Amino acid sequence: MATAGKIIKCKAAVAWEPNKPLVMEEIEVAPPQANEVRIKIVATAVCHTDLYFLLESNDERGFPTVLGHEAAGIVESVGPGVTEIQPGDKVIPLFIPQCRECRFCKSPKTNQCVRECQMAPLDSRFTCKGKKVLQFSGTSTFSEYTVVNQMAVAKIDPAAPLDKVCLISCGVSTGYGAVVNTAKVEPGSTCAVFGLGCVGLAAVMGCQAAGAKKIIAVDINPEKFEKAKVFGATDFVNPKDHSKPISEVLSEMTNGGVDFAMECVGNVEVMRSALESCVKGWGVGILVGWTDLYDLSVRPLQLIAGRTLKGSLFGGFKGRDDVPKMVKAYMDKKLKVDEFITHHMSLDQINDAIELMKRGECIRTVLSVSPQ
Amino acid sequence: MATAGKIIKCKAAVAWEPNKPLVMEEIEVAPPQANEVRIKIVATAVCHTDLYFLLESNDERGFPTVLGHEAAGIVESVGPGVTEIQPGDKVIPLFIPQCRECRFCKSPKTNQCVRECQMAPLDSRFTCKGKKVLQFSGTSTFSEYTVVNQMAVAKIDPAAPLDKVCLISCGVSTGYGAVVNTAKVEPGSTCAVFGLGCVGLAAVMGCQAAGAKKIIAVDINPEKFEKAKVFGATDFVNPKDHSKPISEVLSEMTNGGVDFAMECVGNVEVMRSALESCVKGWGVGILVGWTDLYDLSVRPLQLIAGRTLKGSLFGGFKGRDDVPKMVKAYMDKKLKVDEFITHHMSLDQINDAIELMKRGECIRTVLSVSPQ
Repeated sequence: MATAGKIIKCKAAVAWEPNKPLVMEEIEVAPPQANEVRIKIVATAVCHTDLYFLLESNDERGFPTVLGHEAAGIVESVGPGVTEIQPGDKVIPLFIPQCRECRFCKSPKTNQCVRECQMAPLDSRFTCKGKKVLQFSGTSTFSEYTVVNQMAVAKIDPAAPLDKVCLISCGVSTGYGAVVNTAKVEPGSTCAVFGLGCVGLAAVMGCQAAGAKKIIAVDINPEKFEKAKVFGATDFVNPKDHSKPISEVLSEMTNGGVDFAMECVGNVEVMRSALESCVKGWGVGILVGWTDLYDLSVRPLQLIAGRTLKGSLFGGFKGRDDVPKMVKAYMDKKLKVDEFITHHMSLDQINDAIELMKRGECIRTVLSVSPQ
Repeated sequence: MATAGKIIKCKAAVAWEPNKPLVMEEIEVAPPQANEVRIKIVATAVCHTDLYFLLESNDERGFPTVLGHEAAGIVESVGPGVTEIQPGDKVIPLFIPQCRECRFCKSPKTNQCVRECQMAPLDSRFTCKGKKVLQFSGTSTFSEYTVVNQMAVAKIDPAAPLDKVCLISCGVSTGYGAVVNTAKVEPGSTCAVFGLGCVGLAAVMGCQAAGAKKIIAVDINPEKFEKAKVFGATDFVNPKDHSKPISEVLSEMTNGGVDFAMECVGNVEVMRSALESCVKGWGVGILVGWTDLYDLSVRPLQLIAGRTLKGSLFGGFKGRDDVPKMVKAYMDKKLKVDEFITHHMSLDQINDAIELMKRGECIRTVLSVSPQ
């Protein structure tokens, strides 16, 4: 705990304003206050939600900020009142906290802690050039160091490779959990997954783990199909190959519609298609992709005919309890993670990584941030 | 079976075209064909879905027709292949059949038989003035006699009063079942019911039966509140008394939103409000009211935050199996039915009954059709 109580100067990628490239800056990271943990980020990945906030949401209130929420690191120091975590622990920061005290945390039905930050910036420990820099989603992992409340820190197996398990802190868990926790896909069922980015591929993996007999992978980029096969997809549909609505195509393939449809894009038109692709009577559409730009419009009769529409955030996982279990599943070779990683870069190449994702040319780029 | 094989001439209220009063006519009712049952209708009620079809849907394809689907009667004769039903049996016609053979009937998850008519007219046994008159929703109970497929007939307790239990064939079961079968309201939960017609009041009754601790009755007509109290409502909200959105009012009353919200109006704006009135994490909005005129628009984040949107048709009841049980519950005084009936008339007063419902001045009007 040599540095406890001292400000750390380190490198971070600062988003000064929306729709501009990030800028590598030297920032000052204040010491952890009560119940806070300062973490040396070892590896971080770029998730589409970072891009959504930077490029699509147009919410200037959140800037300047340090983005990034899919990461893993090592605890550098802890503030007063932190009991379960010590310097040197390997940890994953959580964009949804788990306070363990609110009625949401106490309910088995949800992971949405009352302290949930809903992607809005919390109080920040960052300054740059004398200005306060906000912390995105309470994490801000595009930085060599960050400070997170202890209720948003999952302690993981010290043997876990941080440059792999960082993906468990968002994309892999979000897609996988949407299937096994939220949809509760049943053995023998028929599933469709719309959008084959990291979240969608993880949903495909979840369908396979749940014992689905038919897993239809849907994407307008057929180059993703090979990867989807790795995770268990059995059928592949490119909407561009069909003149009729995709819900009709899927209905014909499945004798009336799928049992479960996972929307992993964050597009309200695709959300509507996902619901309409479900079989009447019991089909369940799950919104996994994130968007708050437009309303979703559906026909009431689609629901009255027995379909259900649900949503999922971080796959329904309670972070402090479940992220260590997901890491263990990976260590036990029961969960694929390495297969999502298509590119490796360093933090100062962050804008290249963002470009790759904008062009849909990667699944996940892992950035090395600090040496272990 | 004296009349078997013969055409019956009888009175019926014919809807010659949309948006016009019904006309009492003499119609000819053909004998039941294979697997069909001819029923003497003793009592029928008027449901809002009849009005929806007559006044709102503007679907000329369905005319001329005999409306009516909430009724009870006595079997007059049966066609070849009818095994479980005999002349003289007391029965309730079903607007959703139960074939017992399709995958929907075989699943415990739904009541939506593949033979479901979806409110569209099936083949008809009616003629009037030489013209074919269609059968609304496969039932057509605004007639002294009707012909229904045996898969759409529930045989009930011969001691049941037909002028009461007719309500079990739609309104009472639709609202009650939406709560106990579709929402699966849990003991101790907080509920809101939007719209206090027959279906909404039956939903209130369902909430009480399920052990809800707070049942908030919502209607813009405060005259309905006294009736809602009879069925178990604990709190009463008139949206016209508030300047803020009703979802905010309910959120403040319930520390963040209700566990279950039932929309019993058939209005897409109310549907949106019902969903937004649900607590994040686990709140469930149920669409019970029927409409196909407009799309329903919702914020994706409402769902991603853990809310669920479902729909219910005929309360999720499988008609042939469950309607006799609902009748038994009424006979055992475990289910209220009489309290829904506000008016009694005869079939030839049908247009007066429709006017009453249009003006929201009745809960249910029961029309006597044929003497027992």
